Amino acid sequence: MAIVLGPNQYGKAEIRLVHVAKDGGQHRLRDLTVGVTLTGDMTAAHLTGDNSAVLPTDTQKNTVYAFAAEYGVGEIESFAARLARHFTTSQASIATARVHVAEHPWDPVAGTGHSFARRGGEIRTAEVTCDGTTIWVVSGLAGLVLLNSAGSEFHGYIKDRYTTLAETTDRILATEVTARWRHVAVPPAAPGGWDASHAEARRHLIEAFGQTHSKSLQQTLYAMGSRILDHRPEIAEVRLALPNKHHFVVDLSPFGIKNPGTVLYAADRPYGLIEGTVLRDDAPPPGLAW
Amino acid sequence: MAIVLGPNQYGKAEIRLVHVAKDGGQHRLRDLTVGVTLTGDMTAAHLTGDNSAVLPTDTQKNTVYAFAAEYGVGEIESFAARLARHFTTSQASIATARVHVAEHPWDPVAGTGHSFARRGGEIRTAEVTCDGTTIWVVSGLAGLVLLNSAGSEFHGYIKDRYTTLAETTDRILATEVTARWRHVAVPPAAPGGWDASHAEARRHLIEAFGQTHSKSLQQTLYAMGSRILDHRPEIAEVRLALPNKHHFVVDLSPFGIKNPGTVLYAADRPYGLIEGTVLRDDAPPPGLAW
Amino acid sequence: MAIVLGPNQYGKAEIRLVHVAKDGGQHRLRDLTVGVTLTGDMTAAHLTGDNSAVLPTDTQKNTVYAFAAEYGVGEIESFAARLARHFTTSQASIATARVHVAEHPWDPVAGTGHSFARRGGEIRTAEVTCDGTTIWVVSGLAGLVLLNSAGSEFHGYIKDRYTTLAETTDRILATEVTARWRHVAVPPAAPGGWDASHAEARRHLIEAFGQTHSKSLQQTLYAMGSRILDHRPEIAEVRLALPNKHHFVVDLSPFGIKNPGTVLYAADRPYGLIEGTVLRDDAPPPGLAW
Amino acid sequence: MAIVLGPNQYGKAEIRLVHVAKDGGQHRLRDLTVGVTLTGDMTAAHLTGDNSAVLPTDTQKNTVYAFAAEYGVGEIESFAARLARHFTTSQASIATARVHVAEHPWDPVAGTGHSFARRGGEIRTAEVTCDGTTIWVVSGLAGLVLLNSAGSEFHGYIKDRYTTLAETTDRILATEVTARWRHVAVPPAAPGGWDASHAEARRHLIEAFGQTHSKSLQQTLYAMGSRILDHRPEIAEVRLALPNKHHFVVDLSPFGIKNPGTVLYAADRPYGLIEGTVLRDDAPPPGLAW
Repeated sequence: MAIVLGPNQYGKAEIRLVHVAKDGGQHRLRDLTVGVTLTGDMTAAHLTGDNSAVLPTDTQKNTVYAFAAEYGVGEIESFAARLARHFTTSQASIATARVHVAEHPWDPVAGTGHSFARRGGEIRTAEVTCDGTTIWVVSGLAGLVLLNSAGSEFHGYIKDRYTTLAETTDRILATEVTARWRHVAVPPAAPGGWDASHAEARRHLIEAFGQTHSKSLQQTLYAMGSRILDHRPEIAEVRLALPNKHHFVVDLSPFGIKNPGTVLYAADRPYGLIEGTVLRDDAPPPGLAW
Repeated sequence: MAIVLGPNQYGKAEIRLVHVAKDGGQHRLRDLTVGVTLTGDMTAAHLTGDNSAVLPTDTQKNTVYAFAAEYGVGEIESFAARLARHFTTSQASIATARVHVAEHPWDPVAGTGHSFARRGGEIRTAEVTCDGTTIWVVSGLAGLVLLNSAGSEFHGYIKDRYTTLAETTDRILATEVTARWRHVAVPPAAPGGWDASHAEARRHLIEAFGQTHSKSLQQTLYAMGSRILDHRPEIAEVRLALPNKHHFVVDLSPFGIKNPGTVLYAADRPYGLIEGTVLRDDAPPPGLAW
Repeated sequence: MAIVLGPNQYGKAEIRLVHVAKDGGQHRLRDLTVGVTLTGDMTAAHLTGDNSAVLPTDTQKNTVYAFAAEYGVGEIESFAARLARHFTTSQASIATARVHVAEHPWDPVAGTGHSFARRGGEIRTAEVTCDGTTIWVVSGLAGLVLLNSAGSEFHGYIKDRYTTLAETTDRILATEVTARWRHVAVPPAAPGGWDASHAEARRHLIEAFGQTHSKSLQQTLYAMGSRILDHRPEIAEVRLALPNKHHFVVDLSPFGIKNPGTVLYAADRPYGLIEGTVLRDDAPPPGLAW
Repeated sequence: MAIVLGPNQYGKAEIRLVHVAKDGGQHRLRDLTVGVTLTGDMTAAHLTGDNSAVLPTDTQKNTVYAFAAEYGVGEIESFAARLARHFTTSQASIATARVHVAEHPWDPVAGTGHSFARRGGEIRTAEVTCDGTTIWVVSGLAGLVLLNSAGSEFHGYIKDRYTTLAETTDRILATEVTARWRHVAVPPAAPGGWDASHAEARRHLIEAFGQTHSKSLQQTLYAMGSRILDHRPEIAEVRLALPNKHHFVVDLSPFGIKNPGTVLYAADRPYGLIEGTVLRDDAPPPGLAW
């Protein structure tokens, strides 16, 4: 028996980058949180502390800032791809690089050209992986909180000794969407590029959530994923994580007050968590995408 | 020498209330976090555990839900006032009640009439205090994050042994606004009531932040407060807490890259914190407002 | 009518300072989060952007680090007092300075002399205010989570239309203590100085919580405060904020399982919040302490 | 081309369970956060909203509470295993169950037998997976924050155009350990069972961190993992995630003050993140453990 090193990776997490483009009367503001993860043969670093194969995480951070200055930010998928390609092609000891970008949206405030208000809540995400040759792109979003106040049922489920939940044909359905989708090709074949593809995928998620008459959050999840695939040929696979943000009808009967689903208690936890994948049966293999 | 009970209060914090009004095709959604704080002569409870003067915090919570069902939510200032008046007029042992409401905004999603997306980030606030007779109302907001990418300087300050900060005539100015304002009268003399008054005060805050050529965050704070008072006669006093969310220009000179304030590191902490009050010199006395 | 500047203050918040004393075989580690708040006549800064009275918050931060190097950290009350006195005596434009220190405790790990594990959770706090002449000291702690699994009742309270809570003679009582206490004199007349005074005050808080047969959290609060004052003559006043961290007995009767207060659901919110002051009737006036 | 359902799972997250054993003079307190994740053929639920294969997450929650009452909590690995086995053996539609437990430690307060103080910070974890027949157990911990104030170097790394980091032979090394380890067999062959095995694994992690003269955090990671495997034959594989919590030496030279690594700024982000696996080369296959 021997003790050996298994899979490992290293990188810099949560690099906060704000980029201001000042050319022209209306400034443009981009606010990103960037992470870098690298792999390669790191045996020497782990076993003997020989760092000759290590690109310091401080240097990774510097590179992110330098690239923002040299090339601008642009679409976050492209920005991440440029960085991932750089790391894997500039150092022999780096086998793969994954760059994660979360974008925090801001809106211009009318009037000055240089004033902005942060939109808050939802972020747009991209995770781009490169092995020196191939690029895999996963786009997505997180923090999108949706609620339907009608059109949601839940019944017909398993009952066992521990069941107390009452069946319902009218409940609140609320969730905080984390969605990630893998592209068929890089760059995408979509007109308008990554930005247009993202905007449309997001729109389909929201519309499918609202328009699906739901008998379970699983059904809604599948509707959201398949709606994207139905409309966006550039997308091969969608992964969704949907917490069931429970809203309980408050029992007001002790006070002689009727509550027809009008007054609700929004619980924090526990919460249901529904996770699933929807994909094309002819989707290209995922490779290192996820 | 004796040991005595000093000022004290009790209540229920962070009651999560969602109200859905389903009359008509388009549902209306209100999402509040409510807190109640009561005072009175609580000496017996503290010294002997005699609870005959205590309205349990569980009952306070029930009351919030019951009132939402019985009266609806409406403007949060009015909802809070109704609760505060109830507590002080229904129980002799309650001297004052303060009700705090934070409203989390949602936007309808077009199409169904029952689907909503949470706006995220900023909240609207109200704190209403009643002593059984008089009502004091403080409106406000929190979580409003603003940034100016031009029009901000900082120089002419004290230099001492520990000064390293360089003077600048062009910096990023960013903050997360917490603003609270006290009304001259209850209800306000503003057309449109609390909602219109709030929307206008908020608009003035944002416009004053963006349009003020700033030599310090203090100057911007004063401009924000006085802009409200200039335009809103129903408001007597504005209190602002403005963290200075520092954005540092990244030094790219080691890489031979120029950085004319384009690439910035958004720091979390430490941060400056500027707090101030702007008021009318003939403002009515604040009483128990704050 | 004119618009005027009211009370205002400025400073640097959340300065993260770690100090390592390496003299001798066993290193000593201190981990602080420091905040500074200054007042003075800041009218010019607010009205015209004239910063000649402003000590930049960046300089305040530098001063904290420089003082740690020049004088060490020592007792946090003394460290804060040295800083507060410095700010108010070195600049004519600074009327008062308050320095807040939160200390995060670490324990040495046996063996090496230079390895430490963070204790987590509870912090020790100090808030020291100086007006250039007088020093006021408030010591305290936060994040101390305590629970009694017996010895707690709650009954005899007000019942009204909205009451559903059942009276109980046996409940879980749990809280997260935030306590702050004001000293009679500076430095304290206690043998062992600030450190010993703090350790003893903390011990009395914990013992009073555990040993008080409680009919309400208010009664426990008073017992905690008065216990400190009974035993620590150097302390004049104690302020406590005690959230009632509710633990609800889970109803297992649908499954034919008895639950004699054994299995509980620990709720996050809403929570009761009990706040109170216990003081000596001959306590010196608080001045600017709070 | 068709759109199909890919991998999916569902469950209840963050079930807060407190268990009080009151037999005898000294009560015993256990504080857990439990999560359940189930898989099976959920095609009908996703495609048509037919929930006949769904065990509601509400029922999962009820089961956790009921089992705590019926069987007590005991070692968290055993508690999780009992639940995982129950879900997979009681319902034909459930193929696998994973139960995650995080335990929050409390210490008894001397004197009463029923008073406790929460230890804060670190948690003990267990993740147990069952496919109806086989049980896989992963034990672990999170939130263990360690710091070495000596014995850490970093040099000999790659330099490129974007390198600015200076090499050092004396730096602070600090991390917040997340460790998970897989057992060779279930139950473990260790005397003392899961509890003793955990306590010893934890001790070895801490000692290896402190006693390793480190040339990189990777080297320390490997030392921590291999130390466990050297001493604990019941453990087959260790996975570690170690953020590099940077402590930067503050430059005090502008003030004429020397800073020999004594005064440091503890940064929040960005941070390095080192992740790695250490295992026996004859470890049994992991199956569904992770």
